[in-house]
Amino acid sequence: MTRYYINDLLKKGKDANHEEVIVKGWVRSFRSNRFISLNDGTSLGNIQVVVDFENFDEELLKKISVASSLKVTGTVVESQGKGQEIEVLAKKIEVYGEVNPDELQETILQPKKHSLEKLREQAHLRFRTNTFGAIMRVRHALMFAIHDYFNQKGFFYVNTPIITGSDAEGAGEMFTVTNFTLGEEPRNEEGAVDFKEDFFGKKTNLTVSGQLEAETAAMGLGKVYTFGPTFRAENSNTSRHLAEFWMIEPEVAFNDLDDNMDLAEDFMKYVIKYALDHCQEDLKFLDERYKKTQEEKPKNERAELGLIERLEYVLNNKFVRLSYTEAIEILKKSKPNQKKKFKYLIEEWGADLQSEHERYLVEKHFKSPVILFDYPAKIKAFYMRLNDDKETVRAMDVLFPSIGEIIGGSQREERLDVLKEKMQKMGVSEEELWWYLDTRRFGTVPHSGFGLGLERLVLFVTGMSNIRDVIPFPRTPKNAEF
Amino acid sequence: MTRYYINDLLKKGKDANHEEVIVKGWVRSFRSNRFISLNDGTSLGNIQVVVDFENFDEELLKKISVASSLKVTGTVVESQGKGQEIEVLAKKIEVYGEVNPDELQETILQPKKHSLEKLREQAHLRFRTNTFGAIMRVRHALMFAIHDYFNQKGFFYVNTPIITGSDAEGAGEMFTVTNFTLGEEPRNEEGAVDFKEDFFGKKTNLTVSGQLEAETAAMGLGKVYTFGPTFRAENSNTSRHLAEFWMIEPEVAFNDLDDNMDLAEDFMKYVIKYALDHCQEDLKFLDERYKKTQEEKPKNERAELGLIERLEYVLNNKFVRLSYTEAIEILKKSKPNQKKKFKYLIEEWGADLQSEHERYLVEKHFKSPVILFDYPAKIKAFYMRLNDDKETVRAMDVLFPSIGEIIGGSQREERLDVLKEKMQKMGVSEEELWWYLDTRRFGTVPHSGFGLGLERLVLFVTGMSNIRDVIPFPRTPKNAEF
Repeated sequence: MTRYYINDLLKKGKDANHEEVIVKGWVRSFRSNRFISLNDGTSLGNIQVVVDFENFDEELLKKISVASSLKVTGTVVESQGKGQEIEVLAKKIEVYGEVNPDELQETILQPKKHSLEKLREQAHLRFRTNTFGAIMRVRHALMFAIHDYFNQKGFFYVNTPIITGSDAEGAGEMFTVTNFTLGEEPRNEEGAVDFKEDFFGKKTNLTVSGQLEAETAAMGLGKVYTFGPTFRAENSNTSRHLAEFWMIEPEVAFNDLDDNMDLAEDFMKYVIKYALDHCQEDLKFLDERYKKTQEEKPKNERAELGLIERLEYVLNNKFVRLSYTEAIEILKKSKPNQKKKFKYLIEEWGADLQSEHERYLVEKHFKSPVILFDYPAKIKAFYMRLNDDKETVRAMDVLFPSIGEIIGGSQREERLDVLKEKMQKMGVSEEELWWYLDTRRFGTVPHSGFGLGLERLVLFVTGMSNIRDVIPFPRTPKNAEF
Repeated sequence: MTRYYINDLLKKGKDANHEEVIVKGWVRSFRSNRFISLNDGTSLGNIQVVVDFENFDEELLKKISVASSLKVTGTVVESQGKGQEIEVLAKKIEVYGEVNPDELQETILQPKKHSLEKLREQAHLRFRTNTFGAIMRVRHALMFAIHDYFNQKGFFYVNTPIITGSDAEGAGEMFTVTNFTLGEEPRNEEGAVDFKEDFFGKKTNLTVSGQLEAETAAMGLGKVYTFGPTFRAENSNTSRHLAEFWMIEPEVAFNDLDDNMDLAEDFMKYVIKYALDHCQEDLKFLDERYKKTQEEKPKNERAELGLIERLEYVLNNKFVRLSYTEAIEILKKSKPNQKKKFKYLIEEWGADLQSEHERYLVEKHFKSPVILFDYPAKIKAFYMRLNDDKETVRAMDVLFPSIGEIIGGSQREERLDVLKEKMQKMGVSEEELWWYLDTRRFGTVPHSGFGLGLERLVLFVTGMSNIRDVIPFPRTPKNAEF
């Protein structure tokens, strides 16, 4: 007798007819004391278990209810009912775990529509809901596709440190990591907290980016990527920010900015195609869901494209490549700028672009993903390569429909003297980054890389609108439950 | 003209003869003003570039030295010399980055033998050394194999939180994460630090394990695994401990301990075979290195098996499965116990096993990897399933030659009442783990999982002896450089 995962059994379909099988899972519904929908997490779909209640002990049947867990032994038969090809005619049922219906009422497992907010409050149970289950399977597929892509292309996965003694990059506010008992820190002679006494012998933080360390790795291994958690101690309670999120940062020796753009485009298309190919059922479900949420919006706020449509739209369009300077010209002349519909009007070169501008370029003007490059040096980080005009740097942002910037990257400044000058100007400590500067001392080479926030990608692919709904246990201001 | 990564060109070998190519990389050596060994990190092997110095500008040649970086355009020819099949006859050389020889002297890039300790001090440069480069490529292959294995088996990768509000698991001492300025924490009316004012509104730590959260995911998705950084604030300055390391934790609904042992054995064999198949050149190099380090030891301390031999030994042996009770009997009667050669003598049932005992079982008694199971409840964690004897729990440890325990796991206690009793006895807060207990309330099922420390695995596969040499930027007491 074979134990089947439900996904495998549903895939086998009629070929499994007459087979004696075992299935295990959780009850999603139990209708008419006869039809059990059983789910084991391997897929969105349930297997229908048919119970001839006349042949089963009444006491046993009473234990079967929504959310309870079962082991079912039975025979696969063609289904008489609609909605499924096959079903399992139960011969024997074992109940692993019963459920108290009063307790169930308080949970999101109670079969009725629950708000996403309620799901978040019970993040430990939402893995068992259709929506979150689908999101988690898609998230998995995207993560695997990312590793698969880089491995195929000869990149080495490098784990950059989470706890870091450097706070030089300035990508955002950092959390402190300490082994002191808070409020009882030892003091030095001057009365200041004596960080020499702390675990690492100095002040340490949670990383905001592995890029600088990844650069050192790329200077030896050629092509590397990081994929790990990063942190921001910013008090942004929005649907787009997390205090803890996962980031992917490839870094490639000898790549210039054009190579970097090629890599970003090829990479994004690969992982999105992978999800489309491997998550058809879940994406179809999320597509339907997305359609419904759009219909609830006022007409002028609805997305033009459906979820799967917008994924295909990314695959089927060559990303437009456009300099920042050209973008500013387009935006200045654009209708929403002329008619003052933008919240932030574009008046002159040097302005930082907002999501509304990015989306205008992608959704209205080009109707294609866009890569903007050569941004003003002033609004970008110190490590980006200065152009000959001395005003712009070899930065690039990849802009997607609905969400705007999804990737940010650059060619790095490989010239030691230019880099040092830049650091001085921007107040970045040379002393702290001695090791970073070393890579420019000992055989420096042109190199480039970019960063992709995983959760932004998952938002884009699943059509969800709140970033808290695409990570298992979101960390946000005042929230570190579980 | 094709730009080749050096690995690809070496693989192509004579088939590339007469091709016009571009190669880029760092100079490993420059002999007789004529022979350049060039490496780009894609492999241990270098490509030899031959320079007809008569045809090159003297000023240019002066810029080429060890560690400098080049772009070489030339023709592939069969090599006249020994040690390589092909070489590149240079037509044009561009120097990306020169190196000051005085500065180079201070670094590990200076071509001579450096201690592993010196390599650690220059962790940002050691990616460019043969040994660390090989380790990093093997580490990558192992990490990819892990994702590949679980993906093939239908597991979903789940990112459990790094910052956690719970410190209930008791796997080890935890680091504190805070957004307070240390020494200036706000106080409440009682004068205690007011954690309500902190970023998350409560005291938060860095995770020591994602297991409990992974269990909640497995209760919905069926088969999951985590793969992320974990932390221990323990002041252990040994060659086996890191404050920050990467851990893999699969968790499977409906698996009992036998299934768990099957999974652990199959998984370990898969990833080790993957490394053997994909890292032949690097493992051969590390095998040689291992042999030399063994020869430097006194005879009685030398390992019986070579590095590759011991990997094959794991593949070719069925893991012996043995209860803790049987193990104690064997150890009690063993020669080193009788002759008091063990540092910790085994006197009675209940003793915690040390590495020396584990290695005796594996290396001397069984000559095979061993899985010990059914440990005394007293020495194991609260969540492990209690056996009917009430004295032992369904724990398992996988023991390997040279390093002892490499995997620890268990079948989890799925019975709510037994779990609660256990928590009470062991002082684990029910209130804090309300969400964990919920999984036993709403359709509880038998389930199992285990944890593997990535760096322990990399130590085993590379034959290195200090854990600081198998992670890019090790975090240890008083050390968080880079």
